[in-house]
Amino acid sequence: MDMFSGHINKLIEELGTLPGIGQKTAQRLAFHIMNMPKERVEGLSQAMMNAKTHVRYCKECFTLTDQEVCPICANKSRNHKVIMVVENPRDLAAYEKTGKFEGVYHVLHGAISPMLGIGPGDIRLSELIQRLQQDVDEVIIATNSSLEGETTAMYISKLIKPAGIKVTRIASGVPVGGDLEYIDEVTLLRALEGRTEL
Amino acid sequence: MDMFSGHINKLIEELGTLPGIGQKTAQRLAFHIMNMPKERVEGLSQAMMNAKTHVRYCKECFTLTDQEVCPICANKSRNHKVIMVVENPRDLAAYEKTGKFEGVYHVLHGAISPMLGIGPGDIRLSELIQRLQQDVDEVIIATNSSLEGETTAMYISKLIKPAGIKVTRIASGVPVGGDLEYIDEVTLLRALEGRTEL
Repeated sequence: MDMFSGHINKLIEELGTLPGIGQKTAQRLAFHIMNMPKERVEGLSQAMMNAKTHVRYCKECFTLTDQEVCPICANKSRNHKVIMVVENPRDLAAYEKTGKFEGVYHVLHGAISPMLGIGPGDIRLSELIQRLQQDVDEVIIATNSSLEGETTAMYISKLIKPAGIKVTRIASGVPVGGDLEYIDEVTLLRALEGRTEL
Repeated sequence: MDMFSGHINKLIEELGTLPGIGQKTAQRLAFHIMNMPKERVEGLSQAMMNAKTHVRYCKECFTLTDQEVCPICANKSRNHKVIMVVENPRDLAAYEKTGKFEGVYHVLHGAISPMLGIGPGDIRLSELIQRLQQDVDEVIIATNSSLEGETTAMYISKLIKPAGIKVTRIASGVPVGGDLEYIDEVTLLRALEGRTEL
């Protein structure tokens, strides 16, 4: 769009590469940023660079953190013998927000997907196996309820069950508050199979 | 959220202040940014600072540009005697994309809103009056079809019509491809009032 100038177009273009940000949103954000006080733009710009520069993987669970070991793994009052395996730090955050899980996590940074050519070697799986050398009571697999998530769950289960470690999978079924009418058949069947006695 | 560390929380917080970016989106963007190659983060960060530092208002039409006069105002083949008044540079971009408008623009940077305490002195209105000292054939008011846009249109019209300048308002009505069934009553009535003979 030649009605804008180089720097504006460049900013719109850069913002447009972010996930979920289309051309229109990028344009709206760009104009908003140009109207922000200079200190605010510096703050945002700096926050990005700081996060990128200082943030690394926790050497225990591989979530993103700016310490060598993340606050959860460093917390001695948590149960380090129960490990919940998640696909990414956002899923960790989702479970952590429930405030009910006392164990620790392991972040795979992805899921196995033959379609996308992502194999077991492309996610943090060997690091999980490494952790299981220590004394572990249970591995809870909390990968997504998608084809990739399920494939990953099956793979991990087959890999570590023979070692005598208890492996569990989070339940899948009808979401709380979900209206049956609007729920897909696969979920409905899954909910039926997973029924528990009252 | 204390499961993340300072730099991550700071970035999520900064991103969350942008318009249309909620807590969840900010978190998703933050993790995406931390996974981007360092040069890409630098590029994005730099693009923001450049846009903020180098971009200023066109001294003719007050759109955002990085030259003294924007490419549209600098273009001698456009009709400088026809001025389209818009609320912001995004609206300018929308009309410019049609490729059919040969005149120039005037960007108000807002609209009059007694509700929000935005008066005629808070938008670039005196600058428009200033421009009308020159030879102008027509002022097309293309503010939004909202309460504020209409108020602004009425105000400008009353202000400049007595000076003998032709003032027009873009039509409002049923959008092209719009299904009457789903269009609000006010728009339907407006479309009826604005009917033209075939």
